[in-house]
Amino acid sequence: MKELVTQILNGREKIEDVYFVACGGSLVDLYPGYYFVRTESKTMHADWITSKEFVVTPPTHLGKTSLVFICSHGGNTKETVEAAHLAKDLGAAVVAMTHTPGSACDDSSLNPIVYSWEDDTNEKDKPQGIVLNILNELMKAQEPDYKLYDAVADGLEKADGIVRAAVKSVKNRTWLFAEKYAKEPFLYIMGSGAAYASAYGFAICSLQEMQWMDCCYLNSAEYFHGPFEVTDEDHLYILLKSRGRNRVMDERAEVFLNKYAKKYEVIDANDLGLDAIDDSCVEYFNAMVFYAMSVAYRNALQDKRCHPTDMRRYMGVVEY
Amino acid sequence: MKELVTQILNGREKIEDVYFVACGGSLVDLYPGYYFVRTESKTMHADWITSKEFVVTPPTHLGKTSLVFICSHGGNTKETVEAAHLAKDLGAAVVAMTHTPGSACDDSSLNPIVYSWEDDTNEKDKPQGIVLNILNELMKAQEPDYKLYDAVADGLEKADGIVRAAVKSVKNRTWLFAEKYAKEPFLYIMGSGAAYASAYGFAICSLQEMQWMDCCYLNSAEYFHGPFEVTDEDHLYILLKSRGRNRVMDERAEVFLNKYAKKYEVIDANDLGLDAIDDSCVEYFNAMVFYAMSVAYRNALQDKRCHPTDMRRYMGVVEY
Repeated sequence: MKELVTQILNGREKIEDVYFVACGGSLVDLYPGYYFVRTESKTMHADWITSKEFVVTPPTHLGKTSLVFICSHGGNTKETVEAAHLAKDLGAAVVAMTHTPGSACDDSSLNPIVYSWEDDTNEKDKPQGIVLNILNELMKAQEPDYKLYDAVADGLEKADGIVRAAVKSVKNRTWLFAEKYAKEPFLYIMGSGAAYASAYGFAICSLQEMQWMDCCYLNSAEYFHGPFEVTDEDHLYILLKSRGRNRVMDERAEVFLNKYAKKYEVIDANDLGLDAIDDSCVEYFNAMVFYAMSVAYRNALQDKRCHPTDMRRYMGVVEY
Repeated sequence: MKELVTQILNGREKIEDVYFVACGGSLVDLYPGYYFVRTESKTMHADWITSKEFVVTPPTHLGKTSLVFICSHGGNTKETVEAAHLAKDLGAAVVAMTHTPGSACDDSSLNPIVYSWEDDTNEKDKPQGIVLNILNELMKAQEPDYKLYDAVADGLEKADGIVRAAVKSVKNRTWLFAEKYAKEPFLYIMGSGAAYASAYGFAICSLQEMQWMDCCYLNSAEYFHGPFEVTDEDHLYILLKSRGRNRVMDERAEVFLNKYAKKYEVIDANDLGLDAIDDSCVEYFNAMVFYAMSVAYRNALQDKRCHPTDMRRYMGVVEY
């Protein structure tokens, strides 16, 4: 990653803008990186944009001093490939992550990183880890007073063990959740801070796409400004309770649910081993664990609902 | 507004960052301004952040060369007031919009703008219009080659007439919508570009808060990357079809709905008078019309569902 960062900075005095560009689940994976730059970098700005929007209304600052993270699991998502080339043509440094060797994203002009996605793949070698790793090196190279380097590097080493232990520890409770709620017509999923997109991904990928279950994602902080009016004893909620500065927002939502709801599942980073990561940067690691939780819960739902998570009626099946 | 911009620039060489900070419906109103800066400004960066997140993890660039738009209808939303003072204390120029004279946001140190919110209030005097007006003047003052000034100014003059005519024109179809779908258990609302937050606001304010109806908002561009798998003849959709560069994303969703769904309502900016606004900037005006549409539809639902839009069980009723 150090070499890649050297390459990114080659011919550039510095990176001033970092764009995180993808679609759906791949976009979700880029959110913690976006939040990290926004909250930690003194030299760079960040934005998180779905590929097609990036293409039709490109940000004005996109250019030679930009770094654009691109991600496409299959590697050929049309609008993502288009976004990558738009960025490259405007002189930006591109890092294109894909799981698929030989795909359009695996193009030598896009600094491709073909990641593995097996059961034993280490978290630091998956997109979230790769992005955080690159940003950590870039911050070290570019910002002399950057203080989180060791803590983030340490977190990246620990993440895989934490995620594996977390998955093991929730197995039974995901079954109980599915047992109780498999027939629920609808649910809300909340999260906040750098883990807001974990709620988004849980909703659009794990449930809407893979279970055809209706649900809605919410920022825990926004819950009190409208959405909480639907809350009652019949509504189901999943709350992704982070560790870090944003935890206060999730806690406030939990206190409210505890008082006015009856059916809610709190997935608490504090119970899932995240206390092993330094407080100074733990908030950027919640999303890795929450992603694994969304997989664990959807797998339990798959079994109870007899709905294979890989079944699709449109994606890869029809033209659109 | 010119005077306000002079005041904002007083003691600052230029504005480099514009933050749009509020909660719920007020945050929704700030989105087109955020998108405008991101897509049009060569000197400024922008971000759109819910108040509490802004407070607990403030963006690193927040400081003397920042402009922070704050909005709170009631004027005392705790985290929004906190955000305003945090920004002010760090040296940023703040513009605090509120409907409530004498509220915490109506504070002379925050450049307060107390807006009117009556049936006959002109669109340019409501938060969306105020923000666009200020940004237009700021761009003119700060960017010599800014080209949209006259077109945006013209749009601001025309907006009120367009919105009023649009509301009148949809009256009957909102009744028909309510007649057909009042008992629907759930729906999806889609929009894109600078009007993405119109789908968000339609969902969290007009339906979740004011009708206690379950629904989910989606970016039309993201629909194809997961959410579309739930689509079938039983699911209900509302599509906010913009005029502007982002229209292609909404059109793609419409083509899909036309093929695979049966129950969907397309609210098309092309049918609502937006063609009177210059193509170069029309995409920043869609949201004004879509907001009025969300009001029109919720009013029709209110009557059919016998659920007063002003009824609350928590907001302003209990402590939280």
